Amino acid sequence: MRTVFWDYDQHLVKMIDQRKLPFEFIIAEFDDYREVARAIREMYVRGAPAIGATAAFGMALAARQSSAQSASAMASDLEDAAEVLEAARPTAVNLSWAVARQLKLATNSGSSNVEDIKNALLVEAQQIADDDVILNRRMGFNGAELIADGDTILHHCNTGALAAVDWGTALGVIFAAHEQGKRIHVLVDETRPRLQGARLTAWELQQRGISFDLIADNAAGHFMRTGQVNIVLVGSDRTAANGDVANKIGTYKLAVVAKENGVPFYAVVPTSTVDLSLANGDLIPIEERDQNEVLMAIDRPIAPEGATARNPAFDVTPYRYVTGIVTESRIVYPPFVKNLKKAVDDSLQGIWREQPA
Amino acid sequence: MRTVFWDYDQHLVKMIDQRKLPFEFIIAEFDDYREVARAIREMYVRGAPAIGATAAFGMALAARQSSAQSASAMASDLEDAAEVLEAARPTAVNLSWAVARQLKLATNSGSSNVEDIKNALLVEAQQIADDDVILNRRMGFNGAELIADGDTILHHCNTGALAAVDWGTALGVIFAAHEQGKRIHVLVDETRPRLQGARLTAWELQQRGISFDLIADNAAGHFMRTGQVNIVLVGSDRTAANGDVANKIGTYKLAVVAKENGVPFYAVVPTSTVDLSLANGDLIPIEERDQNEVLMAIDRPIAPEGATARNPAFDVTPYRYVTGIVTESRIVYPPFVKNLKKAVDDSLQGIWREQPA
Repeated sequence: MRTVFWDYDQHLVKMIDQRKLPFEFIIAEFDDYREVARAIREMYVRGAPAIGATAAFGMALAARQSSAQSASAMASDLEDAAEVLEAARPTAVNLSWAVARQLKLATNSGSSNVEDIKNALLVEAQQIADDDVILNRRMGFNGAELIADGDTILHHCNTGALAAVDWGTALGVIFAAHEQGKRIHVLVDETRPRLQGARLTAWELQQRGISFDLIADNAAGHFMRTGQVNIVLVGSDRTAANGDVANKIGTYKLAVVAKENGVPFYAVVPTSTVDLSLANGDLIPIEERDQNEVLMAIDRPIAPEGATARNPAFDVTPYRYVTGIVTESRIVYPPFVKNLKKAVDDSLQGIWREQPA
Repeated sequence: MRTVFWDYDQHLVKMIDQRKLPFEFIIAEFDDYREVARAIREMYVRGAPAIGATAAFGMALAARQSSAQSASAMASDLEDAAEVLEAARPTAVNLSWAVARQLKLATNSGSSNVEDIKNALLVEAQQIADDDVILNRRMGFNGAELIADGDTILHHCNTGALAAVDWGTALGVIFAAHEQGKRIHVLVDETRPRLQGARLTAWELQQRGISFDLIADNAAGHFMRTGQVNIVLVGSDRTAANGDVANKIGTYKLAVVAKENGVPFYAVVPTSTVDLSLANGDLIPIEERDQNEVLMAIDRPIAPEGATARNPAFDVTPYRYVTGIVTESRIVYPPFVKNLKKAVDDSLQGIWREQPA
């Protein structure tokens, strides 16, 4: 089962409602792109690649909902939908990337037949979803060479099948190493406030029979300082041209402490998450979410009534703390400003691995 | 009301059951030192100074429970009690410090009258408790000079009245600055897994009308990197002779990131928490607590059934990340190995502030 998919019989967007996992497994159904935007905002689905695919399907749904009779009217409806979907969450660039790809397709279709445009957007969304799985497999294969037999890997948030259409990014590297027969152990940051590590990553690792222990986010430094971590793997919601990595809140602290202790720190990032238009990470918009996420743990209040909270959902890790960036084309090392662009270009051209010298 | 106290009418040790705060306010009563040890282990009471005073009262209770008819039989009973109390929790040195102080008193009392010994231990426990409040006030006064009007202070765990007999250590500095009329704001680390920040520090700040926001522990790095934190204040459960600070899990990450961003990082530490017998922090025993603390948030399961967790309750921050250590005698700066000993010696001699040059 994929995290998000199109139901070709019912013409609905369907997705696993990740807010309920691992306690309930519910498939939510959507027949309105505005509801798809709400689902992204409320985190039925999260993770940059999954958000991208969901937005692409949301655009296909918007096309289907449109009563436009001309290509230009359809384009206008789709521009409205794009605005709604793009406003759902600001940090993950895959959202605007997928929406822009769909808008461009609608505008450049050359067809005056609105049914053709509707079909084209659905085909494109399906392509984005299918590509995501293939790219994740490639990232997994590329990154697995970083993992040695016996390694303990520290992982933040959820970057598995649930963060993508299937397989995953950083967790996909861990799955690939496990498939290769390497004996590994994962220290799973619980990842407050939304607990994606405790709820989702623990669940995915358990299902695959991969050895892990959950830890409080606070404990990661202790395990690194006392030599119990071989490598840190995280995903990214947007990576700037210079290699600055925006990712789930808490990533920055991990990266600084990893560097301080000589522990390699890698971000696993499809090139669709690289935003070459931003020179550095301080230009990446950081979402601040509802303070109730911090005042509660899932549905349990944890603070006195009337307390207030701050809740930035992401932070920026400057490139100097990043050992390397695993992409679908290769593992990128500094200087990122040069090598990231090359990885993006190569991926667009279908060049997937460094050619032998 | 004090965190822990002797009821002179009922001859009971009483303490606020901090496990229930801020949702219920319950005073627990104890007529058996073994139950006092259990209360320390189960964290009815926590925080190094509070644990010290509780253990001192526990020893007074053990003396009262003893049916010994001779001073030597009493000493033997108290040695048994000391063993039980000291085994309750390993990291905070105040526990063994208070127990040793009581044992020494019983052994050196010179009295052959067991009633005299019982009285002496109760007087001593009361003295330790009363001293704690005075020392905390001194630390608050000494540390408040570090806080400027308008400062935002990052704080980890709970170090307030509830972590001591009254007033507190790091939070005591914050209270003192507030009393001086400085306009301050506190970013309160929620402090997983036991959520002492969310449950206890937020509650204490709220009661005093001090401005604060709760944050996920993960967010502290973001606020420091983006220039929103002026100073970090923490307590300590045991500080080694070289200035290495053992404190609540997560402190180490904070200290590293503070240094990286040029944010001053201070531990606020009564000299009873300084263990000059340990050359460095790697010799401090680190308690690993029940994994269910990580698998739950208070009473709410947060991970899939069958998941396992690691739960180190403290970490060690090497002295090179510590800007200064606020004690009751003065603020100690590097070289700690020389200046901490001097602060301890001066405190024993009642020299409380640096003499003017």
